Amino acid sequence: MQEIDLLIHSAGQICVVPNHDGPQRGDRLGDLGIVEDGAVAVSDGKIVEVGKSIDLRAKYAAETIIDASGHCITPGFVDPHTHLPWFGDRANEFEMRLGGATYMEIMAAGGGIMSTVRNVRQAGLEELVADNLPRLASLLRHGTTSVEAKTGYGLEKAAELKQLDAMWQLNQAQPVEVTFTFLPAHAVPVEWHGRTDEYVNYVITELLPAGADWMQKHNVTLFCDVFCEAGVFDVAQTRRILTRAAELGFRLKVHADEFEGLGGTKLAVELGATSADHLVKTPDADIAALGQGDTIAVGLPGTPFGLAEREYTPAKAILAAGGALALATDFNPGTTWNESMQMVIALACRYMGLTQAQALAAATLNAAYAIGRGDEIGSLEPGKQADILILDTADYRQLGYRYGTNLVQTVVKKGRVVG
Amino acid sequence: MQEIDLLIHSAGQICVVPNHDGPQRGDRLGDLGIVEDGAVAVSDGKIVEVGKSIDLRAKYAAETIIDASGHCITPGFVDPHTHLPWFGDRANEFEMRLGGATYMEIMAAGGGIMSTVRNVRQAGLEELVADNLPRLASLLRHGTTSVEAKTGYGLEKAAELKQLDAMWQLNQAQPVEVTFTFLPAHAVPVEWHGRTDEYVNYVITELLPAGADWMQKHNVTLFCDVFCEAGVFDVAQTRRILTRAAELGFRLKVHADEFEGLGGTKLAVELGATSADHLVKTPDADIAALGQGDTIAVGLPGTPFGLAEREYTPAKAILAAGGALALATDFNPGTTWNESMQMVIALACRYMGLTQAQALAAATLNAAYAIGRGDEIGSLEPGKQADILILDTADYRQLGYRYGTNLVQTVVKKGRVVG
Repeated sequence: MQEIDLLIHSAGQICVVPNHDGPQRGDRLGDLGIVEDGAVAVSDGKIVEVGKSIDLRAKYAAETIIDASGHCITPGFVDPHTHLPWFGDRANEFEMRLGGATYMEIMAAGGGIMSTVRNVRQAGLEELVADNLPRLASLLRHGTTSVEAKTGYGLEKAAELKQLDAMWQLNQAQPVEVTFTFLPAHAVPVEWHGRTDEYVNYVITELLPAGADWMQKHNVTLFCDVFCEAGVFDVAQTRRILTRAAELGFRLKVHADEFEGLGGTKLAVELGATSADHLVKTPDADIAALGQGDTIAVGLPGTPFGLAEREYTPAKAILAAGGALALATDFNPGTTWNESMQMVIALACRYMGLTQAQALAAATLNAAYAIGRGDEIGSLEPGKQADILILDTADYRQLGYRYGTNLVQTVVKKGRVVG
Repeated sequence: MQEIDLLIHSAGQICVVPNHDGPQRGDRLGDLGIVEDGAVAVSDGKIVEVGKSIDLRAKYAAETIIDASGHCITPGFVDPHTHLPWFGDRANEFEMRLGGATYMEIMAAGGGIMSTVRNVRQAGLEELVADNLPRLASLLRHGTTSVEAKTGYGLEKAAELKQLDAMWQLNQAQPVEVTFTFLPAHAVPVEWHGRTDEYVNYVITELLPAGADWMQKHNVTLFCDVFCEAGVFDVAQTRRILTRAAELGFRLKVHADEFEGLGGTKLAVELGATSADHLVKTPDADIAALGQGDTIAVGLPGTPFGLAEREYTPAKAILAAGGALALATDFNPGTTWNESMQMVIALACRYMGLTQAQALAAATLNAAYAIGRGDEIGSLEPGKQADILILDTADYRQLGYRYGTNLVQTVVKKGRVVG
């Protein structure tokens, strides 16, 4: 008998979600590699083996043994796009919108993204960390074991760096692993209103170098992201920022095609960005580009849902073009306050036409690739980190079918039961 | 000091949701009667007083004291339309639909409502109870303290009565109070295919009397409901069944206008039905009738959401006509497996255009009226049953704004902390 730390056995289904020498692309999305009556052997925080219960129980002597009879096991969810950390909420603004207020009226009342920017600028680092810890606890409870977080509510040097420091502390303080993104080009702050090019210069000459210093000091690679959208940053401005970011050692992401298709997705593929996110109004040429390149297409169905809009990421077209599709929450206080990847799967099934299997693979393996971690997390394969969910159902197909509640019973992070 | 059982104090907000000598109608929907820094005094399972913390703390000596600082308090949710109890699930059918299968293909594969009917007919009473207990536990966890349940998966005498017996046992076995509805006219079962009028005769001559006997034996009033819809039961058949049901002592409900507006809502008002439910394709004349009568309009936004349809209950038109609008889940295994009234509120805000306050009143007070219990539950007024939620937020406006998760922290049922 080989001694290991943890053996989870007798699971009705284990969804392995195997790597395809990379993400699951095109019509191959949804390969769950299901093992029935399965077991997972874990040691030193990593997966040792996945196989039939009868075989693994004969082979391994585990310190902790979990009987998962009647349960389904999946990889921990990876949420590759959130706007954590922020401060406060905008429930009042949601109420105004439901009461018929226009976007301009909400702005005039001090609402919109600048209200969160004000909150974040004013909050102390400790307050910012304290405000976000419960959000990470909720993410974990709903099965997210790794999450992307970003700046972009600072929009000035000190506040952007404060957001990075907050993420750093949040990553240390609790089990959900945080991937860091630098997004000083999230919006043009009011004090730069009408001077977008000058703000872009400021981002390039002041903020990116500050982010690069932070990166070196903390010995971690940051993503740099730009909100490429009509009325925010155009493709040329996005290109300038991301090109300089790449020179400074950042990996790249792009917010593209949320409201208009400007070509941001094509640019992301051209620049070798790790992901292009939102992708609602994505032009055909950009969809075709996704099929050719390595950039992961990240659909955020919570955003149109949150805003009661009708149009979602054209998932089927992206898959038909051979693209690699991931899912994320876009968890933020303005457009979609939802931290549950299960809810995202439910939306993706209904409004992006994905099957439960496709949505699950997009929310685990492909989501891991969308934050550049596809070789470490996102699937239950030997050598990968043991981030594992035990669901309160024997059948993965209840994900998406059921919605509004939490089907996660037990969360294992790096081999340890944490929730 | 007056001795009482329970005092909850220092709540940021108490949403009383006051009766308006009846439900909140028309443009008066959404009166929450908020008390800030409030307290609730409870004795013998009933609400004694709601007021300012400073006053109630001086007045009452309570056996149990809960400090609700930083929390919002609301009435327990009332869910006036579910299809509990059933047996099994239809996740496979959801998968088939996402994979492009047509309704007819799903039927041919043994899917659709008759698959649940087969399951319920085959299940023993104990199995049926056991399968549904976790669903009621989940309802309670998400803040539903009273729920309507119905037959309609039996469609033959023994199985319909078995569903009633299961509801009875479920009501005894756990804290959520169950209101019982008899719906033998939920569908025309396969063995009566093409003979709808004969099945209606069978309902009238065999099933209704059997339901009436059950009602007498258990000393409880049942609702009788009919699925009035194109291809199921037309208005004339619905009228025949409900007229006979009223003679036998049933109170009335109608499933109307889910797919086509046949006039079922107008009929419901004419017959003095307690509620008319679904109401998506409701004709203008029927909306006008709701404004004149006492029948509660029950919107079920989970159903179009569950099916990824685009059209929802025309709430604003119903309110403009002076109608009384309630919300419910329609919790069932075919079209919408969601038990959270919080999710229903989130859908109603986005797709029915309700504010959070309107949706909350529709999910509590008006929902209580939709099951004929508006004078006992649904608001936090002296003399009413102490069914109380303590939310994990200080602001009721986070309901609806946030979605996909559970904001209920503590559930009090009849004055007792039960979750």
